[in-house]
Amino acid sequence: MSVVADHAAAASHARRAASTVVPARVALLGLGRVGRAVADIVRHSPHCLGRPVRITGALVRNTDARAGDAVCPVVDDASVLLRDHEAPDAVIEVLGGLEPARSLVLSALARGIPVVTANKSLLAEHGDELIETARRSRTAFRCEASVLAGVPFLGTFATRPLAASIDTVTGILNGTSNFILSRMSDGVAFTSALKEAQQLGLAEPDPSKDLDGIDAAEKLAVLIRQFAGLAIRACDIPSTPLHQITLRDLEHSRELGGTVKAVAFAQWTGDGRVCCFSGPAFVPNSDPLAHLTGVLNGVRLQRTGQEPLCFTGPGAGPEVTARAILDDLAEILQAPDIITLKSAVSPAFIGQPSTLGWYLRFASNHLPGAVDIADLLAAHGIWIQRWGPRDTRCETGEQRVLTFPCRAEDLDAALEALCAASSCTANAFPALGSINE
Amino acid sequence: MSVVADHAAAASHARRAASTVVPARVALLGLGRVGRAVADIVRHSPHCLGRPVRITGALVRNTDARAGDAVCPVVDDASVLLRDHEAPDAVIEVLGGLEPARSLVLSALARGIPVVTANKSLLAEHGDELIETARRSRTAFRCEASVLAGVPFLGTFATRPLAASIDTVTGILNGTSNFILSRMSDGVAFTSALKEAQQLGLAEPDPSKDLDGIDAAEKLAVLIRQFAGLAIRACDIPSTPLHQITLRDLEHSRELGGTVKAVAFAQWTGDGRVCCFSGPAFVPNSDPLAHLTGVLNGVRLQRTGQEPLCFTGPGAGPEVTARAILDDLAEILQAPDIITLKSAVSPAFIGQPSTLGWYLRFASNHLPGAVDIADLLAAHGIWIQRWGPRDTRCETGEQRVLTFPCRAEDLDAALEALCAASSCTANAFPALGSINE
Repeated sequence: MSVVADHAAAASHARRAASTVVPARVALLGLGRVGRAVADIVRHSPHCLGRPVRITGALVRNTDARAGDAVCPVVDDASVLLRDHEAPDAVIEVLGGLEPARSLVLSALARGIPVVTANKSLLAEHGDELIETARRSRTAFRCEASVLAGVPFLGTFATRPLAASIDTVTGILNGTSNFILSRMSDGVAFTSALKEAQQLGLAEPDPSKDLDGIDAAEKLAVLIRQFAGLAIRACDIPSTPLHQITLRDLEHSRELGGTVKAVAFAQWTGDGRVCCFSGPAFVPNSDPLAHLTGVLNGVRLQRTGQEPLCFTGPGAGPEVTARAILDDLAEILQAPDIITLKSAVSPAFIGQPSTLGWYLRFASNHLPGAVDIADLLAAHGIWIQRWGPRDTRCETGEQRVLTFPCRAEDLDAALEALCAASSCTANAFPALGSINE
Repeated sequence: MSVVADHAAAASHARRAASTVVPARVALLGLGRVGRAVADIVRHSPHCLGRPVRITGALVRNTDARAGDAVCPVVDDASVLLRDHEAPDAVIEVLGGLEPARSLVLSALARGIPVVTANKSLLAEHGDELIETARRSRTAFRCEASVLAGVPFLGTFATRPLAASIDTVTGILNGTSNFILSRMSDGVAFTSALKEAQQLGLAEPDPSKDLDGIDAAEKLAVLIRQFAGLAIRACDIPSTPLHQITLRDLEHSRELGGTVKAVAFAQWTGDGRVCCFSGPAFVPNSDPLAHLTGVLNGVRLQRTGQEPLCFTGPGAGPEVTARAILDDLAEILQAPDIITLKSAVSPAFIGQPSTLGWYLRFASNHLPGAVDIADLLAAHGIWIQRWGPRDTRCETGEQRVLTFPCRAEDLDAALEALCAASSCTANAFPALGSINE
């Protein structure tokens, strides 16, 4: 039992030592679900970062509405929190959105106050400006929670140039759409799955940014800046809405040896060209990303010709995000002048992918025969890897196929020709990797 | 094309800027496969870390044998590399083994020279002494390549206290044994798979440390110190040799809904008690670790009640290891006085696992009936989750079953009673997680 006693004594000693240290003074911009989770953790475990932390106040829109809210002092004027004679040791921005988040973060960084944010919209849209400001004032700026909140990897690669020299990123970056697709693959309809996600607090009342691939595109823009050094706007990343996927797609993709996931993908070459998309894609079972269900998210980082790295874990949620923010704060308190993030070197030049296969869905009252489909695709240099079953349960017949990798331009031409010749409709979704039995 | 020109101009500007910086002077202790890979990368890409690097010399056993070897200057006397009036900016230790690695690393750290090592044996055995010395002299000490060389995560969690507050580590930490089991699951016999691994340079001429679970146990000891704060010797971690697994085990485990992997596992409670093992274990297909084949390794970090984090990638190899070492060097050059690793708070107290199920193999000329096996196990509180097929192809009949989680002591008593009653032999291997269909 002496081990137990030693352990308890050491812990108590650590607590005593920590309590003699001056607390770090932290201002909270925003007190929504994440801000409240941050304040709660600090209140219940003030020593969880090694050095004690005190929230000096939280910026809210309406202080009256927060009366009696004892989680921390609230103000509706940011200048009170940031004024020079009692500037905080760090600022945590959890307002979300672009303004006033951008102005407040810029103002803090310009004055040498380190900032932690989880705001991917802000980073996607104004990341270069923020990072440049941080570099000029030699002030720490962290955003680990902005992409895969529960999985620390952004900061890691920011200080490891060889590991970071990759050319392909593939991720499941949006928890809501991954939850919905997981439920759909259990046979639950899209609208019911969305309702479930909302009841569980996983989806916003207006879930359109999640479902249209915009949230994942913003995170992808952050990754493209960080790993490719390229500036790209999230709205320029080709994005496909989730509702284009049906229950039968999920059923048939299983027979094709995989599943459908909401994927964010980017692949770049040294000349600034980047092929990218955000939206539903076929993922073969041999791909670890195929097995991430529910709220688990993940990212694969790869350098062509090398084995891939894969990082998975919980992607979102107030407590998960708050813990990542506080870990960023711990790093800042230990090294307030270490600059890790890089701004973009040049603008991205968006190209069409040529290393991806495609999952094609044809629908028609008079579906063309398999030989006709294969012939017409082959005439455009597109080869079929696997045929799905012919679906006759719906009013119009449906046929799904997986192609080998081909040029997106060739596919467009082939589908246009096929639809013109046979009056069928065609939908194409990217297909990752190759299928293993 | 202006994008291309901009990009090239920026790269050329960066090169010119870097070339005006004084190179970091680095001493290499050891010039085996990893040391040579480090020297090669530095020679071919001297600016790959942002700041230029110059290898001042490499310590080798016999300088004569290295005559004409132009990769970098060699010496057989470490004091030449470390002498005070021209002390290097950092030392890279790639000698392997305990001595002289321990003395040289201690000497460098004590004199304030930062050290990078990939030596898990050294860390497992003398980690506390080395880390304490580094902390006393406020000198950086990094070892990212010691566990999952190609996957950066040790340093990440060292500075993120909330993410690091976990209680369970499960890993596939040894590349050689994972390669062999992957080949065996393709139907290749153990000895042939081992020969293949040796031909590919994946296994040492004497592969016993890999095959007996010792290499993985050393890495697990490093993880237990880092995450649990507990001191444990690798030789005290219960380890099972790989050759206890047969081709039929791999075949039957597939029918049981999983596979067999060489697993390192540790779970601890706040009182210093840790349940751990290194050796073959049943891994259900629902577990991402089941899908890591060949040289891919990985680790799962979990806090009970929370979603797990999983990090996978290449685990070893000279170039992979050299790149991780150089990334550690990049971090050290940016922040030479940041101490990340923690020494152990107290000794570990090794307990028996109670949260694991078991994969049991019974063999006998007169195999007891299924009902008899089930009854006898149930009498000891052990419940069978799934039955494998009864194997009659071998001289003695074989039966495999998966149990629900139970106490290891109960299992020992049950197997002893069963073997005594029916003169069969029984082998038990841990089984991770639960089986999903």
